Amino acid sequence: MTDAYDRLLNLLHSHHLICSVEGLLGWDEQVNLPPGSAAFRTEQMAEMARLAHAAATDPEVGDGLAQLEQDTEALTEEQRVVVREARRDFDRVTRLPSEFVTAKARHTSAAYHAWAKARADRDFASYAPFVERHIALAKEEADLQGWGDRPYDYAINLHDPGFTAERISTLFAELKEGLVPLVQEIDAMAGNAPSALKGFPVEAQRTFLREVTAQLGFDYEHGRIDVALHPFCSGSGLDVRMTTRFHADEPLDSLFSSIHETGHGLYTQGLKAEHAATALGQYVGMAVHESQSRMWENQVGRSRALWQYFEPRYRELFAAQLVGISSDELYREINAVRPTLIRVDSDEVHYNLHIILRFEIEQALFRGELAVSDLPEAWNDKCEALLGCRPSHDAEGVLQDVHWSGGAFGYFPSYCLGNMIAAQNWNQARAVLPGLDDDFARGDFSRLLDWTRREIHHQGKRYETLELTEKVTGSPLSPQPLLAYLRNRYGEIYL
Amino acid sequence: MTDAYDRLLNLLHSHHLICSVEGLLGWDEQVNLPPGSAAFRTEQMAEMARLAHAAATDPEVGDGLAQLEQDTEALTEEQRVVVREARRDFDRVTRLPSEFVTAKARHTSAAYHAWAKARADRDFASYAPFVERHIALAKEEADLQGWGDRPYDYAINLHDPGFTAERISTLFAELKEGLVPLVQEIDAMAGNAPSALKGFPVEAQRTFLREVTAQLGFDYEHGRIDVALHPFCSGSGLDVRMTTRFHADEPLDSLFSSIHETGHGLYTQGLKAEHAATALGQYVGMAVHESQSRMWENQVGRSRALWQYFEPRYRELFAAQLVGISSDELYREINAVRPTLIRVDSDEVHYNLHIILRFEIEQALFRGELAVSDLPEAWNDKCEALLGCRPSHDAEGVLQDVHWSGGAFGYFPSYCLGNMIAAQNWNQARAVLPGLDDDFARGDFSRLLDWTRREIHHQGKRYETLELTEKVTGSPLSPQPLLAYLRNRYGEIYL
Repeated sequence: MTDAYDRLLNLLHSHHLICSVEGLLGWDEQVNLPPGSAAFRTEQMAEMARLAHAAATDPEVGDGLAQLEQDTEALTEEQRVVVREARRDFDRVTRLPSEFVTAKARHTSAAYHAWAKARADRDFASYAPFVERHIALAKEEADLQGWGDRPYDYAINLHDPGFTAERISTLFAELKEGLVPLVQEIDAMAGNAPSALKGFPVEAQRTFLREVTAQLGFDYEHGRIDVALHPFCSGSGLDVRMTTRFHADEPLDSLFSSIHETGHGLYTQGLKAEHAATALGQYVGMAVHESQSRMWENQVGRSRALWQYFEPRYRELFAAQLVGISSDELYREINAVRPTLIRVDSDEVHYNLHIILRFEIEQALFRGELAVSDLPEAWNDKCEALLGCRPSHDAEGVLQDVHWSGGAFGYFPSYCLGNMIAAQNWNQARAVLPGLDDDFARGDFSRLLDWTRREIHHQGKRYETLELTEKVTGSPLSPQPLLAYLRNRYGEIYL
Repeated sequence: MTDAYDRLLNLLHSHHLICSVEGLLGWDEQVNLPPGSAAFRTEQMAEMARLAHAAATDPEVGDGLAQLEQDTEALTEEQRVVVREARRDFDRVTRLPSEFVTAKARHTSAAYHAWAKARADRDFASYAPFVERHIALAKEEADLQGWGDRPYDYAINLHDPGFTAERISTLFAELKEGLVPLVQEIDAMAGNAPSALKGFPVEAQRTFLREVTAQLGFDYEHGRIDVALHPFCSGSGLDVRMTTRFHADEPLDSLFSSIHETGHGLYTQGLKAEHAATALGQYVGMAVHESQSRMWENQVGRSRALWQYFEPRYRELFAAQLVGISSDELYREINAVRPTLIRVDSDEVHYNLHIILRFEIEQALFRGELAVSDLPEAWNDKCEALLGCRPSHDAEGVLQDVHWSGGAFGYFPSYCLGNMIAAQNWNQARAVLPGLDDDFARGDFSRLLDWTRREIHHQGKRYETLELTEKVTGSPLSPQPLLAYLRNRYGEIYL
């Protein structure tokens, strides 16, 4: 039995290594790739995808699982987790015929280019057929996986196992009920003044964000941060690659997106490296991942306590730029609330409304209650109702996100669920770790980080998101902590 | 038959892609790897090596070759080249049992660390057993490949097919006969003044070398240059990755090592990309590769004509540093001759003597005429005889090069053969392309580059080195053009 288990581990380890190389190629593509080398990189990545698929579907994995499942009593509790999740992965990947996988990959590539062109041309009609085909493929995939009657639930489960559209609807309805009036109250008071932070030299921005992220706990012995068009975090715990971008006139964008990615990086570095190839060392799902990035970005990163520590250094590096800006004004910049049509530019007060909009639209699409051709109108109506502003063209509306061009339905909810989990975890952390504000004001983030390591990171994939959240916080997932946090943080500033 | 050939191409293409990914991992390791991620990178590279080996030894390759070889008349001339070289590669890789490959890989890793430690400690004795074992492995490998009576010839052929130790001995003897007195003459006249070039800001160095290498023809749409501990050039024609290093007080080291790597890069970019997976788009051998890098570095890069074009820009970027240094003095700095114990620091006049030393020692080792334990003494004696100076410890002597720790015997001769080929090609280019100096003085290097593309790069691996050189230049390979070039270039300055 030990032999069979060890053989399984070896196969999973191979697969993990190939995937990690694929990840590095993707990072390099965004950070280093010479402009003319894209087609060659596509070929390299396709070859790695082929090898990863071959490793994941290796019949020896199936044989090994079957053998181990015959006598699960002989396995330790941890081994049972590994076998359970390896079975889920193996079934998921082997149930899809290779023709389907190839067709979807080909369509995804075509749809991405169609989306990029449509967005540039503000021409949704040219992109609509690609979305239609992606929905058809998503339904076909759900069918092949045995979720034929619940294709949207299947899509959600790809990112966050254990959730259903129904459960999310309930959570989001409760959130919306509290959030819409709160947003209206804050919007009425916040005004819409442009930022006063201009002309921050990039080199000093780089220095500061590097100091902040290292102080938060990111381990630069096993990771780095580079410049790319979009911020992201990839890699595995032993080699995490984050990216950011710099604009002299938007210093907080670069800083907070870096802290956000650092939150992802801390989770990745907190997973048990020796178990990276199995469920014991893998992240739970996108919502939990997002809960980590959001907590460090928002609850911690935008807190008065943290800025008590970092403000002197910030003023040292940007003395000229911060002349005449008081500490209170800086804190208000850091927590500025300005409605925007674009999700990725949104502050955290408005952000969840952008997600609710997308979730409601995806549900309607999958239920067949909304035709793809009617998407722009539906989007704009919902935007006006929820956010109080209407896109003047589709690049500000339905064409703004890349996700659907990749067939990634059911992904948007993770962002909002992540915000809920972050707020709920944050409440719990403050309850069990009194004096966190004092820690932060001294530049010490280690007690909070250790707590997330112990409570969340080291759990790997043992529990699904809802179960883990309840274990960590003692309560079922609820939007109330998020609402309370937002009312508290932003009410104090604006109301 | 076409089907069988296409299937073979697909298999070779897979192998090529995996190797290209391995290459990228190696580049990333030198350029980007976080300090704590080395062990994980080793695992990733071992996995890629395993997959590359599996692709190279895929029985379908053997079956395809056997089928195609049954009726070579049905193949085009180009296809016959592809089949011939694919057969050579397939036999070479399948003749080695996997236990042997694993044992050698393990020993190579251990030997590398032993070498690094021995060099730091100046302690050859601790490293000697690793060299002995590598020689034993090299002999075993030659035996497995059917070259049991000529292990050193086998080692040479791994890098430069078609050469024998005997042929190289003849060439080197003739070179030595002319070179030793020339070096003595020049050394007597050159003095040994330290360089006057100091304090060159790194950013301006970067600007200049980027301008120079782009002007020479390096295609930055399909390549880049970064900083690493050692200069190298890797990648394939569609994505070439070069490295360099900067020291404010050694601006010419950085510049000329970059031009050297650019020569490698131009060759790589000149190989036919659509044939990158087969012999039609692959480099001939190390000596030809080195002939390209050396010609651009030395014959072109250190020429008066090139500097006529670039000197004004150089003085613009480094006005303060070049105050009081005349054009003639700058040219003399660029072509400075200073004996050194260290091969990689050597000027091109002394360089070949460093290689002859190593070749004579490797021959003696493989013939059993020299015991590994006697290496330091033999090295130091030869060094004194050839270069007129004696290492004061082994880190300046026998421990200076990494090659033997990797089992790379028979590799050093390529450097000197490359210098010979470079000089012979250069003669030919000047004969068929009158007015090259005028081109260079105008900053136009395209006629020379086009000629190398046509005559050398586009040939791929059709011909072995000796045959190719004779085709290109109309004469068998000889050391006389190199001797004439050195006497001409350095005689004009120093004699």
